Amino acid sequence: MLYLIGLGLSSEKDITIAGLEVVKKASRVYLEAYTSILMIEKDKLEEFYGRSIILADRELVESSSDTILSGAETDDVAFLVVGDPFGATTHTDLLLRARALKIPHRTIHNASIMNAIGACGLQLYNFGQTVSMVFFTDTWRPASFYDRVRENREIGLHTLLLLDIKVKEQSLENLIRGRKVYEKPRYMSMAECAQQMLEIENEKGEGAYSENSLAIGVSRLGSENQQFVSGTLKELSTADLGAPLHSLVLLGKRVHELEIDYIREFAIDKESFDRVFVEEHGKV
Amino acid sequence: MLYLIGLGLSSEKDITIAGLEVVKKASRVYLEAYTSILMIEKDKLEEFYGRSIILADRELVESSSDTILSGAETDDVAFLVVGDPFGATTHTDLLLRARALKIPHRTIHNASIMNAIGACGLQLYNFGQTVSMVFFTDTWRPASFYDRVRENREIGLHTLLLLDIKVKEQSLENLIRGRKVYEKPRYMSMAECAQQMLEIENEKGEGAYSENSLAIGVSRLGSENQQFVSGTLKELSTADLGAPLHSLVLLGKRVHELEIDYIREFAIDKESFDRVFVEEHGKV
Repeated sequence: MLYLIGLGLSSEKDITIAGLEVVKKASRVYLEAYTSILMIEKDKLEEFYGRSIILADRELVESSSDTILSGAETDDVAFLVVGDPFGATTHTDLLLRARALKIPHRTIHNASIMNAIGACGLQLYNFGQTVSMVFFTDTWRPASFYDRVRENREIGLHTLLLLDIKVKEQSLENLIRGRKVYEKPRYMSMAECAQQMLEIENEKGEGAYSENSLAIGVSRLGSENQQFVSGTLKELSTADLGAPLHSLVLLGKRVHELEIDYIREFAIDKESFDRVFVEEHGKV
Repeated sequence: MLYLIGLGLSSEKDITIAGLEVVKKASRVYLEAYTSILMIEKDKLEEFYGRSIILADRELVESSSDTILSGAETDDVAFLVVGDPFGATTHTDLLLRARALKIPHRTIHNASIMNAIGACGLQLYNFGQTVSMVFFTDTWRPASFYDRVRENREIGLHTLLLLDIKVKEQSLENLIRGRKVYEKPRYMSMAECAQQMLEIENEKGEGAYSENSLAIGVSRLGSENQQFVSGTLKELSTADLGAPLHSLVLLGKRVHELEIDYIREFAIDKESFDRVFVEEHGKV
């Protein structure tokens, strides 16, 4: 049996009892290590599980999925994924391969940013499609997020923006020389996200949102030191939410009074929040 | 400290290690018992936790939240919620009350239908707003879901429909006579949901979807005997997915080849699936 097991958002103790039972008895345990990061180290997981873990980078999962699946017709293989196995990446390719090999599979779900974001105080019902924001470079500034944000905003919905993570990146020089030397990991901050959003709005000028649009910055969601701030995109673009991971939620029109009370509490500037809220949402 | 603790989707073992630690040490443990049901009994939870649980119905949470919060300035109180605490209901009112009383709170997240639905094989990124479908009666057939489904469909997005649950309902007679006698619980099946969707489309005739629109029926998501079927709304409207809980996903246009391969596998009728897919989505 192939088990896809979600690890949740933050600490080694966020795994479920059912998940931990499988990890303890599986013949091999892989940790998916390319679409997201846990806020803890592999060593700490190994110590907590009392066993060793094999890191599965993109290369291993994409080109050697049969290695991962080897023996899973009879033995149990655990494939651990930060958050939920069907969060940002669906791992459909691994499951299709398992199906082709007639290997049964089961998923042990867990929280991911896609549902835990409800902790910011906005109803999950009123979120539209989720979008990704990647680091802009001098030559590459993908703006497809803009149209999706606009689609959400046009029908009153909130948008969750997931922010870029660069791990195991190589410099151009190292890439050319074939040296497996990797750059320091980089995690986009919610301030950088707000800056890039404003940059693209300035260029396009189509008014999908403005520097006065209200948003919520989120950091280290699900951990004991998680943090929320609310404010305009302009305010968020210079706010510091500390260590990663960050995300950002751009508000839509569909907000209830209770929700506003809730998010106003962590406003960067409550006066500005109230003023902008009336301007943007047309009521107190 | 007030702890909001998600229980996950299915069995008593879906709680996280962190959640279980709090349950074991808290001075009181409440189980929210009105917006959703766990697929297991309270007794089984109590046995697994080794302690007793207080059922918190809507009345208790809404009118006696101070009872729940009593002593939480110094002691730990655990409030258990099936799925994630910020799934269908946000419990913002309870948190606002805690804030007013200066009681600190922390959330221990878990999987909910809102993220675990990714297990059907469709990317969570491409889901629009989530909608609720309630049981129609002779005199009450709320159709607000229709416009929201159309909004999602118009921009190519999938729609997750959460289905009505009637627990602790009273008959009109018992209600009038003030007798606290409750009807047997009722859970909407995904077939009933598909029927009601087609009924409203027939009445409105605005073409938000049709009997040929592809959808996925889901039952007992996250449990060992979870089930998926794909097919047209017409096919789903007569399919039987067994015991609750059910949900339904109406497909949008944004589907990738791998996703189609994945969901075709559990099609009620593969030939019909292929034919309709070409008609509705314009390619194989």
